[in-house]
Amino acid sequence: MPSDSTRIVPLGGLGEVGKNMTVIEAEDGLVVIDSGLAFPRDEHLGVDLVLPDFSYLRERNDKIRGIILTHGHEDHVGGLPYVLREVKVPRIYGTRFTLALVHSKLDEHGLLRETEFVEIAPGDERVAVGPFGVQFVRVAHSIPDAAAVLLDTPGGRILHTGDYKIDHTPVDGFRTDVERLAELGSQGIDLLLGDSTNAERPGFTPSERIVGEAFRKIIPSQPGRVLLASFASNVHRVKQAIDVGIDTGRYVCIVGRSMRKNVNIARSLGYVSIPDDRLVKPHQLSNLAPEETMILCTGSQGEPLSALTRIAYSNLPHISVEPGDTVIISAKPVPGNELRVHDTINGLTKAGATVLHQETTAVHVSGHGNAEELRMMLSLVSPRCVMPVHGEHRMLTAHARLARDSGVDPDNIVVAENGTIVELNDDGISVVGRAEAGVTLVDGLGVGDVRDVALRDRRHLSEHGVLIVVATIVVDEARELGPPEVITRGLSELEPLVAEARSQAHETLQRCLGDGVTELKLLQEHLHDDLGKFIADRIGRRPMILPVVLEV
Amino acid sequence: MPSDSTRIVPLGGLGEVGKNMTVIEAEDGLVVIDSGLAFPRDEHLGVDLVLPDFSYLRERNDKIRGIILTHGHEDHVGGLPYVLREVKVPRIYGTRFTLALVHSKLDEHGLLRETEFVEIAPGDERVAVGPFGVQFVRVAHSIPDAAAVLLDTPGGRILHTGDYKIDHTPVDGFRTDVERLAELGSQGIDLLLGDSTNAERPGFTPSERIVGEAFRKIIPSQPGRVLLASFASNVHRVKQAIDVGIDTGRYVCIVGRSMRKNVNIARSLGYVSIPDDRLVKPHQLSNLAPEETMILCTGSQGEPLSALTRIAYSNLPHISVEPGDTVIISAKPVPGNELRVHDTINGLTKAGATVLHQETTAVHVSGHGNAEELRMMLSLVSPRCVMPVHGEHRMLTAHARLARDSGVDPDNIVVAENGTIVELNDDGISVVGRAEAGVTLVDGLGVGDVRDVALRDRRHLSEHGVLIVVATIVVDEARELGPPEVITRGLSELEPLVAEARSQAHETLQRCLGDGVTELKLLQEHLHDDLGKFIADRIGRRPMILPVVLEV
Repeated sequence: MPSDSTRIVPLGGLGEVGKNMTVIEAEDGLVVIDSGLAFPRDEHLGVDLVLPDFSYLRERNDKIRGIILTHGHEDHVGGLPYVLREVKVPRIYGTRFTLALVHSKLDEHGLLRETEFVEIAPGDERVAVGPFGVQFVRVAHSIPDAAAVLLDTPGGRILHTGDYKIDHTPVDGFRTDVERLAELGSQGIDLLLGDSTNAERPGFTPSERIVGEAFRKIIPSQPGRVLLASFASNVHRVKQAIDVGIDTGRYVCIVGRSMRKNVNIARSLGYVSIPDDRLVKPHQLSNLAPEETMILCTGSQGEPLSALTRIAYSNLPHISVEPGDTVIISAKPVPGNELRVHDTINGLTKAGATVLHQETTAVHVSGHGNAEELRMMLSLVSPRCVMPVHGEHRMLTAHARLARDSGVDPDNIVVAENGTIVELNDDGISVVGRAEAGVTLVDGLGVGDVRDVALRDRRHLSEHGVLIVVATIVVDEARELGPPEVITRGLSELEPLVAEARSQAHETLQRCLGDGVTELKLLQEHLHDDLGKFIADRIGRRPMILPVVLEV
Repeated sequence: MPSDSTRIVPLGGLGEVGKNMTVIEAEDGLVVIDSGLAFPRDEHLGVDLVLPDFSYLRERNDKIRGIILTHGHEDHVGGLPYVLREVKVPRIYGTRFTLALVHSKLDEHGLLRETEFVEIAPGDERVAVGPFGVQFVRVAHSIPDAAAVLLDTPGGRILHTGDYKIDHTPVDGFRTDVERLAELGSQGIDLLLGDSTNAERPGFTPSERIVGEAFRKIIPSQPGRVLLASFASNVHRVKQAIDVGIDTGRYVCIVGRSMRKNVNIARSLGYVSIPDDRLVKPHQLSNLAPEETMILCTGSQGEPLSALTRIAYSNLPHISVEPGDTVIISAKPVPGNELRVHDTINGLTKAGATVLHQETTAVHVSGHGNAEELRMMLSLVSPRCVMPVHGEHRMLTAHARLARDSGVDPDNIVVAENGTIVELNDDGISVVGRAEAGVTLVDGLGVGDVRDVALRDRRHLSEHGVLIVVATIVVDEARELGPPEVITRGLSELEPLVAEARSQAHETLQRCLGDGVTELKLLQEHLHDDLGKFIADRIGRRPMILPVVLEV
């Protein structure tokens, strides 16, 4: 690549919400912005996590100078343990809270020694990372210490917004640094890589403070326990709930592994304060009156093993809900989780609790800026080129439209996909090629070993069941050693047909052997086709047919 | 049962959204209100439809006097073809449009001769159905001719609202008949069975007319084709779109089987008018400029085979989208369909279309009344007893709370489940027993033949794949006839282990045979356990293990 240009290669987060990962590459080195994971969709049967394809990094391992993290959400840092197992990364750069979360995560994976942590304070601090100058700009988001990344690169100055909203009254007092953004705009930004999540939504996202005000209205008047479920990393949300709880004389109990971990880190960094004597453990709750307690827990997405889900199904020691209790689900279901969340709400309601959730009460606001905030970012930064990131295609397109409206030359706006290689130089921005950028599926202990054909098989098995026919042939004598065996699974109405299927298999084998067909593969094919047809004719199903012919 | 009481037995629609079906039973006969279906959830792998369990009706077939339909939505009439195959129903009662839809549906199923259709006009018309007097009260909903059902029964006067909203400016001019409701209220209603779908949502649902106003703002300014997807049965929605299209000089093309069917019925009944010369077929579109056309199609839920989905994937003859075209998705995803709808939007955006949908533009309103409308119903009708119907538990509970707030005696409010037997008499309302009320799953050609164990098997297969081991034993000589065969499906990382798995199976068999174990069932158990452990130890997975041991 030319020495006066920079390549931008998104490996994840474009055409999707999740697994954000973008390579910024110059002749003499590259950095990776974020390293996230995504959660599997229904068609990923039995898959636990989805990661970007790391081929591009593996092939350029000696060029990697570091990973820069914008903030600590799983879709930005969750892939780190996996990427560190595959490539050597000398340093990880991030703000304080982000690094604290990542430290704890890599510790759990036994990967702490793989890499060095470098904290960058948002503001003037400038760090050289290979051929790049790197600075952070503070932004408001639904996690503390989120930052945009400013990169001075051979091809030009790049601002990657990370996830952000323009919250003028954030809970921690740290607003998106609009003055700094304006200053950068007047100095000149060559390329804006901007969060597109809410680009389609008109207007402004309400301030996080709105949720605190709702808590302050709701919580004091509740007659029983108050349970609040939220994303564990949403420290501002958790802080607001705790503050109201403590102010109104409640003891606070933290439940769920990630909630405990995040609150501990937030307390140790001073982002949340709970007097020790107001913090109780689950087994102490039985000594307190319901109206003296507040429980913060995981499970806002209806995750099957989370605290709130277990409470909804009366399946968590020490904690249950009863009439008079109030549950606040302070989050929005991630698309695909709606039914699970509804199930949790119904379970809690059946147990007698009143459940407040975002469909009915103002107990959640988004962490991403809506269209007007994206317009404000475009206006402050006045970028020469724009490449929308973080979002499904419809969101990227909406963001591109906002960029065009704000006066960016349409030739300098690129709506890319994962794997698109984009080059930035003095002339502008252009697509120069494609990198490999599929998905890597993580299933149980294995990484990247669930191939498409296996998923297709799983889907087929899951929808139609399986019929196995086993036959043993005495090849020399062209005869069956005994009657074929037939087994079925996943298709109960096949059971009455087993005897007939055996006869059908026997007939097929007799016909083939009579015709002089003794090759096992051919016999199997005939069995497959005849039995498939037999089942389809009889009951209109298409189970997976697995013929096994053994020879003696 | 006592002769001066009435039983209410919900067989579907309580604790869920879908498959609404309620039995109203007196000593001398029973009627069924609605006969709906539900669509399967993810855990119903390979299931096409979900129906109520009809046992209660089968056991009382000679008491059935008729089925009364409130309106023509699938969750109210979709189960009819299945119930008519199982029980004899002398008559089906409904309003004009409802019966027209049902007529067409039963015709397709070849079931027209099974039953007689009786049209009831909303208003004063009163029909005797067995021991009941039945009248309809007009209500506004997202389909024409929706009605509430007033039943004079031995145990008291019952009003079943059906689905409704209080729309003061509905598109067809037929408002919810609040005057009649008030009149009934002053005469005295003993029991209200009320739609609870939106009971949790504060305020009022906007009028359907709001959507028409949005269409009138949006459609005229679009530079290319306008495609509009909606529920086919939402004739008011379709009518409003067509009216704007025709007024602005567009030709109208109707695509998708159910959309064509519904528009035809609506035209023949005079609910929609399209001049013949403005209606074009898909193959004629190529002769028209994009800005002269409007396409109404199915697919607002992202259904895989629907018109809009096929258009999004460039997979429908004669119709495609290109830059300049606008797609309006005038519906809200039913919970569980969100990801499919997002996929469709992304596909259409990639093809260059601008997509307007309910998350970003006011192109949809609900057909169900919100909390304030439920309050109004309660206030108009002033029922002595209330039993919320149509909704998940959380919605029923919210509706019960509204009833309590409106002054109904809490002892006379019952939050029931499917199968709860509720009795109404002069003393009030009470739970007197439980009927069988599970689900019946429809899969392919079969009804009710997908049992739980098969679903569990399918889930297991779908998540972990299957390993089949086949061995042939010469029982007399306690030896294997040849090496065992191992086949795997759905688990690609098992493939490298096949050889080892065969050795493991061989070892197991040698050990068993050496120990004198020759019974096939026992050999299979040992193979199952040993191979299961081997796979779990090696790769941490738990595929379904199917051992097949044949004897010679």
